[in-house]
Amino acid sequence: MSPTAADVLGAGARLAAEAARFTALGWMRGTSGNLSEVVARDPLRLAVTASGLDKGELSAADMAVVGPHGEPVDIDGITPLKPSAEAGLHARVAALTGADAVVHVHTLSAVVAGLHWPGGVRLRDLETLKGIGRRAHDDEVVIPVIANSQDMAELGDRFEAAYDPATPAVIVASHGLYTWGATLLRARHVTECVEWLLAYKIATR
Amino acid sequence: MSPTAADVLGAGARLAAEAARFTALGWMRGTSGNLSEVVARDPLRLAVTASGLDKGELSAADMAVVGPHGEPVDIDGITPLKPSAEAGLHARVAALTGADAVVHVHTLSAVVAGLHWPGGVRLRDLETLKGIGRRAHDDEVVIPVIANSQDMAELGDRFEAAYDPATPAVIVASHGLYTWGATLLRARHVTECVEWLLAYKIATR
Amino acid sequence: MSPTAADVLGAGARLAAEAARFTALGWMRGTSGNLSEVVARDPLRLAVTASGLDKGELSAADMAVVGPHGEPVDIDGITPLKPSAEAGLHARVAALTGADAVVHVHTLSAVVAGLHWPGGVRLRDLETLKGIGRRAHDDEVVIPVIANSQDMAELGDRFEAAYDPATPAVIVASHGLYTWGATLLRARHVTECVEWLLAYKIATR
Amino acid sequence: MSPTAADVLGAGARLAAEAARFTALGWMRGTSGNLSEVVARDPLRLAVTASGLDKGELSAADMAVVGPHGEPVDIDGITPLKPSAEAGLHARVAALTGADAVVHVHTLSAVVAGLHWPGGVRLRDLETLKGIGRRAHDDEVVIPVIANSQDMAELGDRFEAAYDPATPAVIVASHGLYTWGATLLRARHVTECVEWLLAYKIATR
Repeated sequence: MSPTAADVLGAGARLAAEAARFTALGWMRGTSGNLSEVVARDPLRLAVTASGLDKGELSAADMAVVGPHGEPVDIDGITPLKPSAEAGLHARVAALTGADAVVHVHTLSAVVAGLHWPGGVRLRDLETLKGIGRRAHDDEVVIPVIANSQDMAELGDRFEAAYDPATPAVIVASHGLYTWGATLLRARHVTECVEWLLAYKIATR
Repeated sequence: MSPTAADVLGAGARLAAEAARFTALGWMRGTSGNLSEVVARDPLRLAVTASGLDKGELSAADMAVVGPHGEPVDIDGITPLKPSAEAGLHARVAALTGADAVVHVHTLSAVVAGLHWPGGVRLRDLETLKGIGRRAHDDEVVIPVIANSQDMAELGDRFEAAYDPATPAVIVASHGLYTWGATLLRARHVTECVEWLLAYKIATR
Repeated sequence: MSPTAADVLGAGARLAAEAARFTALGWMRGTSGNLSEVVARDPLRLAVTASGLDKGELSAADMAVVGPHGEPVDIDGITPLKPSAEAGLHARVAALTGADAVVHVHTLSAVVAGLHWPGGVRLRDLETLKGIGRRAHDDEVVIPVIANSQDMAELGDRFEAAYDPATPAVIVASHGLYTWGATLLRARHVTECVEWLLAYKIATR
Repeated sequence: MSPTAADVLGAGARLAAEAARFTALGWMRGTSGNLSEVVARDPLRLAVTASGLDKGELSAADMAVVGPHGEPVDIDGITPLKPSAEAGLHARVAALTGADAVVHVHTLSAVVAGLHWPGGVRLRDLETLKGIGRRAHDDEVVIPVIANSQDMAELGDRFEAAYDPATPAVIVASHGLYTWGATLLRARHVTECVEWLLAYKIATR
């Protein structure tokens, strides 16, 4: 079923508030990063924060609506906004993982970790791993690191090749971090835990 | 005497505000950590922040009430919430130390320090030691470090074995920090001073 | 055309809010830094944050108005305030670059980077470079570093000699950072991205 | 002339607001540090933040009033509060330097710098030195470092021996930082600039 304007604006209000929170943490500097929520499946529709705006000052209406390939989709009662190129990757992440919320932020830790461990960031025996759905003991976790690209199809292919259903995060080297969750709140918590883990890994290397 | 709903909600309001403060400092990322206040002794009853919620967005009612082994206790007028597994350790800390407030946070400094000094973090000749009840000169202070466990009885045994009545903090390696105080405000101040001391120790090693 | 008091106060309100934002980020410690907006061209007129005031507590009226050489200019209905010595450099940056907003902040990263790379800070293959108008791949970017001076004519000459139209930032060694943009919001975003890039460069050297 | 209750409460309101600001910066962790303003000279009287309270939650009345040796002084209409031991050092700093505001904070940078450079922290050729009343070029600045003591007379003697009228800051090793200024706002700005300078010095050693 097609999403309504109310569905999009409801998601938009949540996404705007969450983006302001991430901005205050310094994780969406400039106009970087974008957040999305699935507003319909079959066909897939996502509300995604619009391109080029300050992520600390979004309103509920500052959202693009896209389909499975990131293409803009018109919704009655919603002024269409241009999606960022990365909206297509959000859609692909949502389709692949089944997650209803996707977070993409430009955290310094993610890019530093991607440089230090281009083959993936290995983590184990840390309580905070429970915060991303893994075990605190005897569980080898690898946050995948994929090479950056401006070609979203290529980047999506790399994402799919690296994707591990047990690990809700992927680092894009020289770029930033993708995380996801069943809800936007869950994606927030995953993002915070991944950031903690990466900061720990960098501080103790 | 059994605590009343008002006792629990009063403690809950204080715990929620304090958790929001620690969250803003970045010390309760994801849904990590928990805070508690003793609401009765004989038998021991604690209000503990509920499991799985964002620690920056708790309300006074988002508290579990537990007994000496972390078991849930029903209170008239309070909707029972599931305590986290760690609630039993909070109760044991309160019983052992006599403290009426226990803080457990996942600070990066604590886990980094636990890795660097698995035998305990030695500190001396620092004015900030006065903030945890020790002397600023000629007083060798060791913050104990214990190994992590998912078995709360085992973790509690390690805590008791490591416990020094003169030092209101214990680091759980690969996990986080426990501190305590006569009041929640005192436990806040102890936590802040321990964090300062650990950051200093790490910065100057 | 000569700017009106309303032009100056409008710019002043934006500059005061932006300065408070930068102050909260710790980038305008003490009374350091200044922000400006062009309020007229032909002849050039800028509103510049006044000298010696706390940059977190400015009002819209705490602005000096200067001409192309940083000389104070009287505007009907505006109480004249003493411009800082650096106002002349702001005017020169606005004239040279065509930017309508200039940011000067004393960020630690800029001064640390200026010490490490006195010949310019080389950056390439980073997504955040797109935030300053460059490409994320195969584009060698150099943030120029110029020597500090108390003589604004000399500092301006160094600025002009180092200026690269493709790079909206210059580091003044032992001093701070200049950035600019078509609008104050754009200058904010450039400043944030440059800060991110410098922090990354320092963290990975 | 003896200060009135209004004088003390006026100073108290300013000191409480300033202490909350420093607390938010993380510079008064636990209950550490104290701020003071001179409320009378001849004889010297200071309002000083009271001992043992959270410095982020003071009210205008949470001030002790002391004389030249830190002894409590009764003021009509003011409930006497116990001054901290350090109040006597505040009074001595105010008498020696002529400053009407004294800041004492426990910043990590100050204690780290005191450890690295026990003979004093040498700084030169930095624009931010202008923020503490020095020159940005060819001016060798030394922030004195004195040994800590619990004996305020001894600490005061060390302060006087190290004091340089051209440098409005002294580091107490293993303890924290003292700064001062003609007004509390000026002392804030000096404190911020000293912190910037120490952070820079540590980051580039």
